[in-house]
Amino acid sequence: MISNLPETNEMIGELTRLLDELAAFSDGAEPGVTRLLYTPAWSKAQRFLADKMAEAGLETRFDAVGNLYGRLPGTNPDAGVVLTGSHIDTVRSAGKYDGAYGIVAGLAAVAFLKKMHGSPRRTLEVVSFCEEEGSRFPLAYWGSGNATGVYDWRKDGDRADEEGVPLREAMQDCGFGRDDLAECRRTDLAAFVELHIEQGMVLERMEKRIGVVETIVGQRRYAITLEGAANHAGTTPMTMRQDAAAGAAECIVRLEALASQWGEPLVATVGKIEAQPNTPNVIAGTVDFSLDIRHADEWRLNAFSELALSEIERIAVRRRLKHRITPWLSTKPVPMNPSLTRATERICQQLILPYRRMVSGAGHDAQLLAAVCPTAMIFVPSKAGISHSPHEFTEPRMLADGVSVLASMLYELAYEEQRI
Amino acid sequence: MISNLPETNEMIGELTRLLDELAAFSDGAEPGVTRLLYTPAWSKAQRFLADKMAEAGLETRFDAVGNLYGRLPGTNPDAGVVLTGSHIDTVRSAGKYDGAYGIVAGLAAVAFLKKMHGSPRRTLEVVSFCEEEGSRFPLAYWGSGNATGVYDWRKDGDRADEEGVPLREAMQDCGFGRDDLAECRRTDLAAFVELHIEQGMVLERMEKRIGVVETIVGQRRYAITLEGAANHAGTTPMTMRQDAAAGAAECIVRLEALASQWGEPLVATVGKIEAQPNTPNVIAGTVDFSLDIRHADEWRLNAFSELALSEIERIAVRRRLKHRITPWLSTKPVPMNPSLTRATERICQQLILPYRRMVSGAGHDAQLLAAVCPTAMIFVPSKAGISHSPHEFTEPRMLADGVSVLASMLYELAYEEQRI
Repeated sequence: MISNLPETNEMIGELTRLLDELAAFSDGAEPGVTRLLYTPAWSKAQRFLADKMAEAGLETRFDAVGNLYGRLPGTNPDAGVVLTGSHIDTVRSAGKYDGAYGIVAGLAAVAFLKKMHGSPRRTLEVVSFCEEEGSRFPLAYWGSGNATGVYDWRKDGDRADEEGVPLREAMQDCGFGRDDLAECRRTDLAAFVELHIEQGMVLERMEKRIGVVETIVGQRRYAITLEGAANHAGTTPMTMRQDAAAGAAECIVRLEALASQWGEPLVATVGKIEAQPNTPNVIAGTVDFSLDIRHADEWRLNAFSELALSEIERIAVRRRLKHRITPWLSTKPVPMNPSLTRATERICQQLILPYRRMVSGAGHDAQLLAAVCPTAMIFVPSKAGISHSPHEFTEPRMLADGVSVLASMLYELAYEEQRI
Repeated sequence: MISNLPETNEMIGELTRLLDELAAFSDGAEPGVTRLLYTPAWSKAQRFLADKMAEAGLETRFDAVGNLYGRLPGTNPDAGVVLTGSHIDTVRSAGKYDGAYGIVAGLAAVAFLKKMHGSPRRTLEVVSFCEEEGSRFPLAYWGSGNATGVYDWRKDGDRADEEGVPLREAMQDCGFGRDDLAECRRTDLAAFVELHIEQGMVLERMEKRIGVVETIVGQRRYAITLEGAANHAGTTPMTMRQDAAAGAAECIVRLEALASQWGEPLVATVGKIEAQPNTPNVIAGTVDFSLDIRHADEWRLNAFSELALSEIERIAVRRRLKHRITPWLSTKPVPMNPSLTRATERICQQLILPYRRMVSGAGHDAQLLAAVCPTAMIFVPSKAGISHSPHEFTEPRMLADGVSVLASMLYELAYEEQRI
């Protein structure tokens, strides 16, 4: 167990200053932070972070896709690397915490450990992954994906952004995508710990300070089309209608009721609806809507998804609507490492921080790292659950809580070389 | 009662040829017929019709807004004018029957009556109203509105089309909007009879050949906004959501059920839905939707509208959604003249044409004329109820049925000078 922790007020000042400085690296006139992969704002942010890492006495390097690492070498080079960090890219008009907080907090924790405890036994590294959000190119987890072998930048750079620029070209224009840079694929990791804002309101509502993630949920996403007949709203009696909007509405109400009945951690969402011709005085002939289903348990995720689709089908058939269901995303739930999860809990107890075991309903770099090393994920509260918005906010003292838990974990893993 | 009727095959040829010729006056590359007010296609169609009217021996004139009249003078000039016709303008990508059929049929009926029976006692006129659809400028019934005093072109031409061209300017560029043209306002009408396609599927489903319109329904239209919270679809448990899409869906399902329960002729339609941010993985924060309610009875129209709005309010409050309801259109039901309606029925019986008394769920020029003279409205079937579409279709023999009924009515009104 760590014997001392960073002084809170000092750490708060350092974290908020660094988050503000990072937030200034943003594209254009949009509100909030917009830092898309391989844009000038992104480049400047990564170079800025490399400088900060170097100032803290870490050895810095970029790998071939632009992931930035800051390294504090351990005395036992065979013991593997303990890695912490998150992603530097953002969605459009983002807040300043999503991703950035995990990097800044990792840097603060490692800098503190170096200053107070010198060299660790296991090597410690802080990573700023180049991309996680999927905001510019039609793929996500480009950073952690290349680090874990899910992607290979030598083969997978063909997809283009909205302006038709291929990922490979953008990467090379930014100075990456070259064989002389460090290899992306990590095979030397002993553990990965990611600290992130919750992006939900559970911790706030439950008055907890730390979320200990047990599992990152699996997801199923579907595009659903109901097709009826676009008739005149005035001349078509209720009994002669094939109203795609009413059909979609019945599906949405039914899906919500089923999901509520199944209970946590299942969530099902229809966030996107498009009606055709979308005119007040014409019955909707076609409605497209999305369905997003998430659960921490794969069997239940599958079972609910099948039930949901069969209900949609039943409603469509009863209403004489044609239906088309296209699955377009399917990920499995990813459990975090149980012994790291227990260690996180214990540390929260020692620090007297109210915590809650929970699932992560959002995807994170941790779910890719979990395939290659023991992985833990720690949440701090998000005010009102708001994220992907300039209104994203976490109180500075809660940011500091996260760093305390992270520093304790990294100490145990790297300095005490605890077995995982 | 009329002693003879146009020979069906001959009339079918004449009607379909004239409808095809009119359909050729259409703007641009879009499928179907697009003939917006005061466009070149519109001008050419009106001039073409004026020529056809003149060929049939009618005296033609344009009034100040471009309504075209073809006149067969009566021997009793004090007895008022019996008018028939419909509108020449179309929606974008329309069919060739809506509006055009009423003009072409009127011309065919009057030409036949002139040929077979010479001069009528009451003057007969065929009108091609310049505008009814509201497709170019943000107002409708510009033609019949100026004829009945609802609009005054000297004052009401300020509204602009999508390209910013004011109605008055478009009218003047087309050669209208001048004081030296015929006065628009009609104060000399003895009766108006409008023949139109049903634009619904009731006649077809009921296997009737003629619809005898008792009432043109009144309408209420509302723009409704539900506002919740646009949270993350993964991290927001079902119990913590304020989902505007689920709220709107519940409203739509409830409105449909209520409308079905009230029964004909009530119809209620949600044709337009817009969700924000409209993204699969974000709970909808705001949903705007339209509500269109129609009924032939004003008291019931009001009662249902109030019930519908109170249900929306109840659903919004229970779901902790803010709601905003903006009424933007309100028209009263317009009954057709009962003695003309009975006369239409009698004529259908005499001609052995299966008919049905019904309401018109769509608005028509007849509802404006009804304020200034006894007015009747006659429907012929629309295949599959399709209208405002290039697929609009009515079988030629059914088009001819309509002309037979119309010619019989005009004969009784103008030649027999029947009391209305």
